[in-house]
Amino acid sequence: MKLVIGDKNYSSWSMRPWVLMKHFGIPFEEVQVWLAEPDTRESILKHSPTGKVPCLITDEGASVWESVAIMETLAERFAQVPMWPRDAAARAHARSICAEMHAGFGELRTNMWMNIHASFPGKGATPGALADIARIDALWRNCLDTYGGPFLFGEFGIADAMYAPVAMRFNTWQPALSEPAAAYARRLTDAPAVQAWIADAMRETHPIGYYEACE
Amino acid sequence: MKLVIGDKNYSSWSMRPWVLMKHFGIPFEEVQVWLAEPDTRESILKHSPTGKVPCLITDEGASVWESVAIMETLAERFAQVPMWPRDAAARAHARSICAEMHAGFGELRTNMWMNIHASFPGKGATPGALADIARIDALWRNCLDTYGGPFLFGEFGIADAMYAPVAMRFNTWQPALSEPAAAYARRLTDAPAVQAWIADAMRETHPIGYYEACE
Ligand SMILES: N[C@@H](CCC(=O)N[C@@H](CS)C(=O)NCC(=O)O)C(=O)O
Ligand SMILES: N[C@@H](CCC(=O)N[C@@H](CS)C(=O)NCC(=O)O)C(=O)O
Repeated sequence: MKLVIGDKNYSSWSMRPWVLMKHFGIPFEEVQVWLAEPDTRESILKHSPTGKVPCLITDEGASVWESVAIMETLAERFAQVPMWPRDAAARAHARSICAEMHAGFGELRTNMWMNIHASFPGKGATPGALADIARIDALWRNCLDTYGGPFLFGEFGIADAMYAPVAMRFNTWQPALSEPAAAYARRLTDAPAVQAWIADAMRETHPIGYYEACE
Repeated sequence: MKLVIGDKNYSSWSMRPWVLMKHFGIPFEEVQVWLAEPDTRESILKHSPTGKVPCLITDEGASVWESVAIMETLAERFAQVPMWPRDAAARAHARSICAEMHAGFGELRTNMWMNIHASFPGKGATPGALADIARIDALWRNCLDTYGGPFLFGEFGIADAMYAPVAMRFNTWQPALSEPAAAYARRLTDAPAVQAWIADAMRETHPIGYYEACE
């Protein structure tokens, strides 16, 4: 399998399936396309009909695009690996918060973009971004309370991979969080697969101007 | 099971799981909450932590929210029913276009909202909306070509339910479509479960002002 991704420093969507596959030791070849270059869209369109990353290329050569579709496809193909919670009710809950991430939190995404090597503490805290953060804090706490941690549904799985870029944003922008949410963001940051992505991001030298400036 | 929905005339997200469950004859109790009322959010929050519809309440009393999560949960619980394509590659393809719908086409959604009883031909055709329509037209044609129709992956399934509200928008706003896409939108409109939703929508008398006016 191949996984087409963007810049590790900036591409929050790419991070999700990459971290999931690394965590579960699923072998894949990485195809990286730099974002915000004149030929970015054209290069991605060779793999994915939306012109967006991530895109998974299966061994049969089929393209699977959109984070949640890639996650579901991997969970199905590697059914022996506990990517989703084993319990049906917990699994439905995990799918709900993953889909909520997939379609939502637009204010957070706009105002506190992912830029792993940057530090913008206190910036970007618009009312909309703070409302998104309050919802994320609440849904994390609910999961940690219900399933007992250390990750959202016990052991690290798809839901944690979906929220890993949110932890990266929290490291960069440092909004106020409840103690359980802040502790979870630290555990997520420290997960070996997340550390591997961060290390690669820190080695990148491909700055994108409009993600580097922050008023 | 219960399905919490909004106005049938306006609530495009509610339409998706409702039509899917009707099509496959899955019994459920419908709980309707009128949108855009002073207590709408409070009423929905009793069922769903996001304050948005749709929300599925399982027999065990658990809430499942977000369209794609509801669809996946239903597909899993009623595994004997072909909600997803049986073929793994087709299923991955179906998941990709459903997730694309779930997170995307914001310009279409903003400029050509769902209002089943209205007719606004030629309006709302911003460049962004037209770009979204061009992508939808292409992805529909690709599915119809690849799998042979009459629905996106052969027989009616989750992908058709996900795009049913798009057909409603096309009926109202009447953008130019390719012949295969227009014919598919008509077949989708004529599907019995979709007709049942439309009939209920036409009987509703709960106008929401800002969805009725169109410059
Ligand atoms: N809903 C998509 C979002 C993908 C997305 O927006 N990807 C961005 C990078 S993180 C992208 O490819 N942008 C294209 C570009 O910048 O040209 C998903 O879940 O995969
Ligand atoms: N991503 C959500 C979107 C749900 C959504 O936006 N629902 C609208 C109605 S179609 C809603 O409940 N709005 C709340 C309100 O208007 O108060 C999903 O897939 O279910």
